[in-house]
Amino acid sequence: MAYKQAILIRNDLKLPKGKMAAQASHASVEAVLRSDKDKVKAWRSEGMAKIALKIESEKELYRHLQEAKDLGLTTSTITDAGKTVVAPGTVTCGAIGPDEEGEIDKVISELKLM
Amino acid sequence: MAYKQAILIRNDLKLPKGKMAAQASHASVEAVLRSDKDKVKAWRSEGMAKIALKIESEKELYRHLQEAKDLGLTTSTITDAGKTVVAPGTVTCGAIGPDEEGEIDKVISELKLM
Repeated sequence: MAYKQAILIRNDLKLPKGKMAAQASHASVEAVLRSDKDKVKAWRSEGMAKIALKIESEKELYRHLQEAKDLGLTTSTITDAGKTVVAPGTVTCGAIGPDEEGEIDKVISELKLM
Repeated sequence: MAYKQAILIRNDLKLPKGKMAAQASHASVEAVLRSDKDKVKAWRSEGMAKIALKIESEKELYRHLQEAKDLGLTTSTITDAGKTVVAPGTVTCGAIGPDEEGEIDKVISELKLM
């Protein structure tokens, strides 16, 4: 069984790359900590496959995360404290899984790589 | 007690931002999974403070990670499979902690934000 995690990042916010890396890491870690431990173990043993995908609006981000939840997948949603780059409370990114590749792909098939 | 995690990213590789986000997430998750569960819990409850920092060479990355290990801090080191952007086996980034802010700062004080 191949496992992967998808990280959905708002491209419309034009985050600086360091900020984007930190926000993506937030999303990734939070989804891992919420996930089934056996799935995390299997995913880790396979090399922790991850893909970073572009999202063009807050609405689009929420829509994809809701689709993932509807499939029973574990998600995270990251809101930035907004001290520096974005307004307080801005939703910057989210992650789905790790879970079975086929399940993750159902939600992200139309998205482009960041 | 304030906890944070530092993510050290090679700036000299000029990684595309999506690749950088995925590699940073790798480093962050791996260090979290290796860390003391109580420290992770405390860090998570505080909002998972994270900073992404610039490193200008593989040698500099290893030096900082070794300094962290010498202080007894948990680290991760990420090597890319190199199928796309960088040569196979390229070390791209690493993470330190989560751990007490003061301990992390001993290792990263001279580094600049990515």
